[in-house]
Amino acid sequence: MSDGKSVTAALLIIGNEILSGRTHDKNIAHIAGKLTEAGIRLREVRVVPDIEEEVVHAVNRLRAKYTYLFTTGGIGPTHDDITAECIAKAFGRALIRHPEADRRLVEHYQRTGMDYNEMRQRMANTPEGAALVDNPVSTAPGFQVDNVYVMAGVPRIMQAMLDNILPTLVGGPKMLSRTVIAELGEGVIAGGLRDIQNLYPGIDIGSYPAYTNEGFRTSLVLRGTDAEELETACDAVRQLVRSLGAEPEDGAAT
Amino acid sequence: MSDGKSVTAALLIIGNEILSGRTHDKNIAHIAGKLTEAGIRLREVRVVPDIEEEVVHAVNRLRAKYTYLFTTGGIGPTHDDITAECIAKAFGRALIRHPEADRRLVEHYQRTGMDYNEMRQRMANTPEGAALVDNPVSTAPGFQVDNVYVMAGVPRIMQAMLDNILPTLVGGPKMLSRTVIAELGEGVIAGGLRDIQNLYPGIDIGSYPAYTNEGFRTSLVLRGTDAEELETACDAVRQLVRSLGAEPEDGAAT
Repeated sequence: MSDGKSVTAALLIIGNEILSGRTHDKNIAHIAGKLTEAGIRLREVRVVPDIEEEVVHAVNRLRAKYTYLFTTGGIGPTHDDITAECIAKAFGRALIRHPEADRRLVEHYQRTGMDYNEMRQRMANTPEGAALVDNPVSTAPGFQVDNVYVMAGVPRIMQAMLDNILPTLVGGPKMLSRTVIAELGEGVIAGGLRDIQNLYPGIDIGSYPAYTNEGFRTSLVLRGTDAEELETACDAVRQLVRSLGAEPEDGAAT
Repeated sequence: MSDGKSVTAALLIIGNEILSGRTHDKNIAHIAGKLTEAGIRLREVRVVPDIEEEVVHAVNRLRAKYTYLFTTGGIGPTHDDITAECIAKAFGRALIRHPEADRRLVEHYQRTGMDYNEMRQRMANTPEGAALVDNPVSTAPGFQVDNVYVMAGVPRIMQAMLDNILPTLVGGPKMLSRTVIAELGEGVIAGGLRDIQNLYPGIDIGSYPAYTNEGFRTSLVLRGTDAEELETACDAVRQLVRSLGAEPEDGAAT
């Protein structure tokens, strides 16, 4: 399941609102799907509160462990938006007023006739040496420092920022996937599935049961980077399903 | 925001399917809400893949740091269900066939006329000394070892297990919350809000902007365990909103 060549990522969600249950996360699945398409394996997600030491610790742990770290949340104008300060601290860099971010915000607030006040100016702060990530929705940019990409938490803005970041990333071998659906309980198929997994260690086989009105239904998801090995393992799974008296169906690729 | 008396928790989600984007998480918000109601503060969430060393490491880190650790996922019959083994390893305990879990599963499979095969028997495995968590949906139990509660990943089953666990937990001072809604941009209110936050360090003030057809709208969420302090801080926020020319509305408690 792990190989030396794979490009990995972690996602750090910064926000009390997810941890209190107030806000339902909509970002994990979107980011996971986009990274998977790009040949990047999301290997860990963490949600931490708006507390500086927690954020700094998680940033330093995750940026050291994975190829890329993405963060969401905490880049607005209010006192609970502490992400830029935390990233600066994690890298041991000064927090500066980024001239280009400042220019964009000055222009934005002039255009909209609103006051570019002290708190809004905080949105132009980045660690020294950061590169900006464009925000086509509401101007205030995200930023990048080394392998860390800082994005907004609002899904519409995050998605636009991620679309700007993705073309700049170097992906690994693309993860391919096939789904075989069996009208069988997981427990019926589990033994044979384990044997197939042992035969094809380069393929990651997941089993996801569901209970429908018609009875048991299990989705078997096979993932790997070698198309030929994936098809061979898929054929073995289809044969297993048939040997247990059911007709395998192909599910949507995921 | 943090006090010595607070009862804290972490959630560990074990499952490749969340990290690949295949499955959209439905458990974080549910668990967060139920714990908050019970006076327990969810302070961290991690999602890790079905890889033993990752799970063991996260379990040991999180159970040491927080009052309670809840896990979801990885307790079915298939080869990718490795949670029981990982918890046993994390605690340095033997993995045993739990007699009562075994009895329940024997009865379940007799009643349903299905084969209680080798892989299904894996669902009766727990670390030595574990207490069972009842599963009224599909029999195969969760379990508890010290401050770690192991639940299924399927939301319907997880929710039933959590309902069984909650009455046994000792909560801390209940977290109260109030929401004040202002038809103002975040940036307008941010300075005054910071001053109120500084005046009431026992209250956690969060600011959540939205863009509606009518313009800006910001939800200000105040949370704390002292009802009187919460009301005083709320009044200060309402006055701030009025001083900026808007009429504060009360939002739903969250």
